[in-house]
Amino acid sequence: MTSLEVYLDFATSLAQECGQIILEASITRYSKTKKVYEKHGNSSDLVTETDKMVEELIRSRIISKFPEHRFIGEETTAAGHQCELTNDPTWIVDPIDGTTNFVHGFPFVAVCIGLTINKEPVVGAIFNPFLNQLFTARKGNGAYLNLNTKLPLSHPNPPPILPSNLSQCLIVTEYGSDRSPMVIGKKVQSIHNMVSKSGNVNSSNKNAGSVHGVRSLGSAALGIMEVVKGEADIFWEIGCWEWDVTAAIIILREAGGLIVSGNGPNEEPVDILGRKYLAVRAGSPFWLENCGMLLKR
Amino acid sequence: MTSLEVYLDFATSLAQECGQIILEASITRYSKTKKVYEKHGNSSDLVTETDKMVEELIRSRIISKFPEHRFIGEETTAAGHQCELTNDPTWIVDPIDGTTNFVHGFPFVAVCIGLTINKEPVVGAIFNPFLNQLFTARKGNGAYLNLNTKLPLSHPNPPPILPSNLSQCLIVTEYGSDRSPMVIGKKVQSIHNMVSKSGNVNSSNKNAGSVHGVRSLGSAALGIMEVVKGEADIFWEIGCWEWDVTAAIIILREAGGLIVSGNGPNEEPVDILGRKYLAVRAGSPFWLENCGMLLKR
Repeated sequence: MTSLEVYLDFATSLAQECGQIILEASITRYSKTKKVYEKHGNSSDLVTETDKMVEELIRSRIISKFPEHRFIGEETTAAGHQCELTNDPTWIVDPIDGTTNFVHGFPFVAVCIGLTINKEPVVGAIFNPFLNQLFTARKGNGAYLNLNTKLPLSHPNPPPILPSNLSQCLIVTEYGSDRSPMVIGKKVQSIHNMVSKSGNVNSSNKNAGSVHGVRSLGSAALGIMEVVKGEADIFWEIGCWEWDVTAAIIILREAGGLIVSGNGPNEEPVDILGRKYLAVRAGSPFWLENCGMLLKR
Repeated sequence: MTSLEVYLDFATSLAQECGQIILEASITRYSKTKKVYEKHGNSSDLVTETDKMVEELIRSRIISKFPEHRFIGEETTAAGHQCELTNDPTWIVDPIDGTTNFVHGFPFVAVCIGLTINKEPVVGAIFNPFLNQLFTARKGNGAYLNLNTKLPLSHPNPPPILPSNLSQCLIVTEYGSDRSPMVIGKKVQSIHNMVSKSGNVNSSNKNAGSVHGVRSLGSAALGIMEVVKGEADIFWEIGCWEWDVTAAIIILREAGGLIVSGNGPNEEPVDILGRKYLAVRAGSPFWLENCGMLLKR
């Protein structure tokens, strides 16, 4: 086995194991031993005992198996650990992407385990235990759903033909947990532009406004997986984090998709730490430039 | 069997049969014989051959089995038939709720078959063939998922405890297909209020702004089903239609939920034809009045 195969096997098994823990925790999550905490008194930024427990499990497994590797995790970072991306192999982990969904039982919840080498995502495993969907990829080997279905999907649920312009796109985006007026204002304005011909976009631009639809699932990783499957055309979010997207980036790329920061055309590679992500599905990324016209950044 | 049992059995079998047709059509939906049409040149209001074919199948089955009953369907109405709700038994049908999702393969698509008697929904069957979820109810007999799981869910995925205020709620809403500036403006402003403490809401109202999260699935019926399951607390939409909600209303009520028009407190029963729907899940509807503060109407 190559190193990447070893890393992906490790990440896959670990994501499945943690998914099972999350599923079991959801059954008892409102018992007296399961508490929900607001981060910084923000009712939209939640963390549970399960987030912390699962991240600690993942971190300890990595330290034990690959002691020379680095680690960046959502809860570890929240607890004050430095978040520095170097050229060393670095595991970037979100124990529960979609914690608010987990708290409510809304079935879009995922364990995200990604690995970068030379700052580039090379291995990713994302598992949603509620819908029993496992997404995996390693560099150069394609992306898979539940280990044997090649992504993007082709059967029994083939993605539609590529849209010929932005108005035919289905877009996934999130309001997210950063409710600062600046971030929310940009998001609200961008989404207004997407759904309205009369948004703040120059109406002479025939690609602006009135996309097919806007969807929000409450998990950035699983939003990108909709693009990976081909069920949505575009994912856009500002304000989410590297642990939400690192595993998703390699899975998206191996499924033929493209991800940028959304600042303008020709800006690859994406800045993993940049907290701005615009992903498009396999095929011609002709609409990337047009997307830019809709988005407040 | 009582009449309502007969009606529900009929609606359930028909929803399952139509779901299978929709699933099969999705495999070939972009072949040359499957076309997508924009209604009135609106790229967000789509109809397919499958919508029309499934509605015609449902309508012909109803005429054959219950010739004395009336029928209201999305596509029949779009084709110019009168849409009048009387006290007669009336089947209100959406062959595909979530047509845009169907076109893209986004897995929230449902057949909705509801029956009103004396203008009150008494039987409902909603089937999502992509996730194989069937929701059914008849008046006085409770609501069920896949025929034998009582709703709201209690195991293995119990709904969380009831929120103690609006800031702890998970809200499902949709931008919908009506992209007129007035409708979109109200929706954007309402959602801005939901996600922002600095929305246009009096900030002295401690219940205003910054809810736990806002989700959009692209199907009003399935959005209400999230509330029915207990996975979301509130569904709100303006601009959708009676065929999107009639089956959902009886299922919601039989699961203990409440639906109003969102114009203010104590306004039951909901106006089925009113195109404004605010649904809350089983339990104390204490937050209905507070919801009103967030919503532009």
